[in-house]
Amino acid sequence: MKESLTIIKVGGKIVEAPDTLYKLLADFAAIEGKKLLVHGGGRSATRLASQLGIETQMVDGRRITDEAMLEVVTMVYGGLVNKRIVAGLQANGINALGITGADMDIIRSVKRPVTPTGIDYGWVGDVSRVDGEALARLIEGDIIPVIAPLTHDGNGHILNTNADTMAAATATALARHYSVRLIFCFEKEGVLLDENDDSTVIPQLDRNRYAELKARGIIAGGMIPKLDNAFATIDAGVAEVVITKAANIATPTLGTTIHN
Amino acid sequence: MKESLTIIKVGGKIVEAPDTLYKLLADFAAIEGKKLLVHGGGRSATRLASQLGIETQMVDGRRITDEAMLEVVTMVYGGLVNKRIVAGLQANGINALGITGADMDIIRSVKRPVTPTGIDYGWVGDVSRVDGEALARLIEGDIIPVIAPLTHDGNGHILNTNADTMAAATATALARHYSVRLIFCFEKEGVLLDENDDSTVIPQLDRNRYAELKARGIIAGGMIPKLDNAFATIDAGVAEVVITKAANIATPTLGTTIHN
Repeated sequence: MKESLTIIKVGGKIVEAPDTLYKLLADFAAIEGKKLLVHGGGRSATRLASQLGIETQMVDGRRITDEAMLEVVTMVYGGLVNKRIVAGLQANGINALGITGADMDIIRSVKRPVTPTGIDYGWVGDVSRVDGEALARLIEGDIIPVIAPLTHDGNGHILNTNADTMAAATATALARHYSVRLIFCFEKEGVLLDENDDSTVIPQLDRNRYAELKARGIIAGGMIPKLDNAFATIDAGVAEVVITKAANIATPTLGTTIHN
Repeated sequence: MKESLTIIKVGGKIVEAPDTLYKLLADFAAIEGKKLLVHGGGRSATRLASQLGIETQMVDGRRITDEAMLEVVTMVYGGLVNKRIVAGLQANGINALGITGADMDIIRSVKRPVTPTGIDYGWVGDVSRVDGEALARLIEGDIIPVIAPLTHDGNGHILNTNADTMAAATATALARHYSVRLIFCFEKEGVLLDENDDSTVIPQLDRNRYAELKARGIIAGGMIPKLDNAFATIDAGVAEVVITKAANIATPTLGTTIHN
């Protein structure tokens, strides 16, 4: 029986406002057992870019990352957001270590090629390898990794990398060592039967029920790629994927738990 | 007999220009044995502050760090400069881990009180404790720490901290575990008999010779506090302090070696 490990992925909105950040830090500190945090920071990056006169261009929700934007995200994700979280967790008694994929060569990626339709995302990386052994050694040393959404290519280039993808790849790599519960935080209580009613959370979702709710049109739109990714992560060995609000992370019974 | 450890402190000028940075990375990679890097980044911080319309105020060479300036140095030191060095070292086959004092609670500091003359440095910290055990554990795991000049107070605040002081405090804390050679890089070949002639480097400097050269007025000005600090570090257990150019770090015979 593997020991359990909780991996939390929180987006920029939660970690960028002081009040939600402080609540997150306290809630994360309250989670029992081994844990790891992956964070975003896109809003702060967009704000800093704007202050520097750098235009933010998004394609399919992904940031076009030229040289100037790479500097911005390296500063915001790797510096401002990551170190604020680390210092805040330390104040909550959590021995956090803030890292990017370049640190200890934990997560490598490959620069995304120009798409067939001619979109050049610039310095954006797609994860190619996560060093689960090195992460597990940190975790076994009672260190709590806090991962910023940056990776490297092994040739000295930092690459801007999607935080959801990094969380899923990290969870998968650690599934060899732990029974991993991966919690994706988003703006709703969970996957809802009625998308306008937060009281209609589906507590448990397996593949059959997902197929049924999709066929009936109850699960639709942006929820489908999110859940397809969740099931792919389960297939890759992660024990459970939870989709819920950041405010719920310390309460294991809330949100939607996705399992086989 | 303790194993040797080389600690390099480089200032902002070296790590901020691509050509000197690449040379530094290759030279640092070429240093044999266990090692650790402490870096600055002040010029980039001043440049970013200026781009954001934030005025840089220095008092006795120290940066007044209000809330806005703290964000700037957290982004520049902890993000931009630190992660560039880490990714560059990884490309040179060095398993670097970029940290601030908040990460793993490695270096704590105390917010500097307002001086008797009324100077408020703001979010500036004076080092109060270095966790040499935790650093030694990383080093024994073949990880090369790369330390940004930021610390924390344990209550969730990041503090801007002098990189020279952090290097000296880190060297002192690690002197229990290693025979530490601490190399401070500056713009000259070493301590010079004639400050305008780089060929007059004093290769070895002990306390007697230092007293003699000070009495004769050959060592004067800004060199005195630098050397006083070097001898204090030696007194605290560090085996050797070297003062030299960054270009010389891979050649142990160059520069001025200070010892008892």
